[in-house]
Amino acid sequence: MNTPAENTGNPAAHAPGMPVIAVIGDGQLARMMQTEAIELGCSIRVLAGAPDSSAAQVCADVLIGDYTDIGDLRRAVDGADAVTFDHEHVPNEHLDALIAEGVNVQPQPSALIFAQDKLVMRKRLGEIGAPVPRFAAIDSVEDAAVFFDEVDGAVCLKARRGGYDGNGVWFPDSREGLGTLVEKLLSEGVPLMAEEKLSFTRELSAMVARTPSGEVRPWPVVESVQSGGICVEAIAPAPGMSDEQRERAEKLSVSVAEALGVTGVLAVELFEVDGEIFVNELAMRPHNTGHWTQEGSVTSQFEQHLRAVLDFPLGSTETLAPVTVMANVLGADKEPEMSVTGRCVEVWRRFPEAKIHLYGKGYRPGRKLGHVNVVGSDVEQTRKTAAAAAHFLMHGEWDDNYLNKKEH
Amino acid sequence: MNTPAENTGNPAAHAPGMPVIAVIGDGQLARMMQTEAIELGCSIRVLAGAPDSSAAQVCADVLIGDYTDIGDLRRAVDGADAVTFDHEHVPNEHLDALIAEGVNVQPQPSALIFAQDKLVMRKRLGEIGAPVPRFAAIDSVEDAAVFFDEVDGAVCLKARRGGYDGNGVWFPDSREGLGTLVEKLLSEGVPLMAEEKLSFTRELSAMVARTPSGEVRPWPVVESVQSGGICVEAIAPAPGMSDEQRERAEKLSVSVAEALGVTGVLAVELFEVDGEIFVNELAMRPHNTGHWTQEGSVTSQFEQHLRAVLDFPLGSTETLAPVTVMANVLGADKEPEMSVTGRCVEVWRRFPEAKIHLYGKGYRPGRKLGHVNVVGSDVEQTRKTAAAAAHFLMHGEWDDNYLNKKEH
Repeated sequence: MNTPAENTGNPAAHAPGMPVIAVIGDGQLARMMQTEAIELGCSIRVLAGAPDSSAAQVCADVLIGDYTDIGDLRRAVDGADAVTFDHEHVPNEHLDALIAEGVNVQPQPSALIFAQDKLVMRKRLGEIGAPVPRFAAIDSVEDAAVFFDEVDGAVCLKARRGGYDGNGVWFPDSREGLGTLVEKLLSEGVPLMAEEKLSFTRELSAMVARTPSGEVRPWPVVESVQSGGICVEAIAPAPGMSDEQRERAEKLSVSVAEALGVTGVLAVELFEVDGEIFVNELAMRPHNTGHWTQEGSVTSQFEQHLRAVLDFPLGSTETLAPVTVMANVLGADKEPEMSVTGRCVEVWRRFPEAKIHLYGKGYRPGRKLGHVNVVGSDVEQTRKTAAAAAHFLMHGEWDDNYLNKKEH
Repeated sequence: MNTPAENTGNPAAHAPGMPVIAVIGDGQLARMMQTEAIELGCSIRVLAGAPDSSAAQVCADVLIGDYTDIGDLRRAVDGADAVTFDHEHVPNEHLDALIAEGVNVQPQPSALIFAQDKLVMRKRLGEIGAPVPRFAAIDSVEDAAVFFDEVDGAVCLKARRGGYDGNGVWFPDSREGLGTLVEKLLSEGVPLMAEEKLSFTRELSAMVARTPSGEVRPWPVVESVQSGGICVEAIAPAPGMSDEQRERAEKLSVSVAEALGVTGVLAVELFEVDGEIFVNELAMRPHNTGHWTQEGSVTSQFEQHLRAVLDFPLGSTETLAPVTVMANVLGADKEPEMSVTGRCVEVWRRFPEAKIHLYGKGYRPGRKLGHVNVVGSDVEQTRKTAAAAAHFLMHGEWDDNYLNKKEH
């Protein structure tokens, strides 16, 4: 296999006079940053784990390496105007070292820590008065027992670090179950925290971008529909919120971005409980609940992220349609017999308005393979279209009687 | 300089199960096809003249070669699901040879000839009843004299092949001037035609996409504002047209695409004369007057072109805003002292809604360096914003007293 620019960098990939952004990570978020970099005339150098990874497939300057290796990181950031990430897993000590060497890392480890350690995040958000569920550090079975009683057994136990998409989160249903789990995890060296399990009405996501100079622009708050801990759908803007509620959520995202010194895009995942909101998680990068911005907003989260980390002025976050719905395309248990192009064709034939985004990944159960965006004017109709399109891409069959209707 | 995949191809660039499109040509049209290919999950192999050309900068599978060399073409199209172009200059005999070898070339030479030879195009359009200016083949000074009299001296002389952006077009102001010019050009071996120089009110562009299977979708007709033979602005949809006029222009573009067997995107450039329309030129590829679709249409011309040449169903061409204006960024006589990033920053600071697209090219007078798209609701305001943004990107200064106002 011929790998372009392996371990060397490719100067021809970078337009004269325009900034180079080093992106650490090779997933779909880095891939979609490249889409926007092309149009901005900027360029990206990707530090990728493999030459056929989602982002490496589509970039002209790819370095194959390990993001936990300071040498590989140094090669990737050499000559870049800014360095950013498509995940939160680069060791902060490496980032501190790069910063000490004069590298422009955005967001900085001083902000990233709040997206990496859930206990540190909860404490800090509590300090700035952001609404958070009750929480506690869990360093022993006793801590767990005390907290269990405090919240009347409504406990959500979390690994402080490394969880994603429902991993690293547990809902023990008894005091004893909690104790056994805590003992096991602590013995495995997993740092833990617990928080009150809220009976939420739904999940929301408030996204915002902030520049190193301090400019901040939020997008409208969206509803995030989850299944098994994974976002399956985002509805923008979130239906059924009063102007006051919207404004409160947007202001919260702005104040979190400012208080934590976030640069680039920040996603503030929220629980809605009886019209009140509580912060669930933070992500300091483009986020699944922001994919709708590619079609539904003047400035997509990927363009905004690049502009923010370069300290350029931010773009308008106005919406382009009354509603935009994003539906994720996840690998099903069994790959459909119909080819992926065959599935795209069927979806487009039925829905010329469906915008299919695919990440260049092989099919695997549960894997995020792509998403579908649909802009529209009616929330339920737009949701139905996006969901039907995504379902067909996943399963190779419709979730309604469409084909039957057509055949009769 | 390290050139990725030079002369070899890069299999890692192509997602499993998804089509590969070979694009002959390395300009901004190929570059913007790559933007859409990334999101579709398809992939592009570019046959480029140089590794730092506009499209080669942003693609992971680049072959450096000469599009007039059949060997280079064969290497570029090897294994591709479809072959398309960002210009009309590939020799048709090479395309015929590739087709004979089983290569899927879209559009085909049988259609391309009408975009390559203005006389052949005029004759065919006349046959299908499309409105065209009066025209004649000019094979001698006598032919020219006869035509001069026929149109009362309102003559536009054109090279049958190879003209673009005002090149290869002449407006002689006397019978003698015409004769001298025709004699000179014929002696240089330039095949000529002449047509009536129309006193048009404005120029329009009717764009459409068609698949090999025959699906056709037009975009709304746009107004194309020209200066010195170069498109400087496009307003979508064209203001001040009745529904009947719009429909007529769209139907014309559809019928031209069908009659000529065009596949991919077709631009039908039109003259408007007292509410009537006449075909000026054809382009069988994405076109400058279609750049507005990146922000203003559900499906951009670049995505639609890829879908069309792959014979996939076409996407919705609905607009996303009441008006979208595209303004070209052309190199001025003198490059501004302010850096290109500095100019972007100033534009974005004033206009957060301005969408800047840059092509990765070095500054050169008259060169198409990029464009700005602005979506809005008021035509004049949106035009002003797009024009002001493009002007600043070209000149490094505002075309109004904005700075003065700010300073006072």
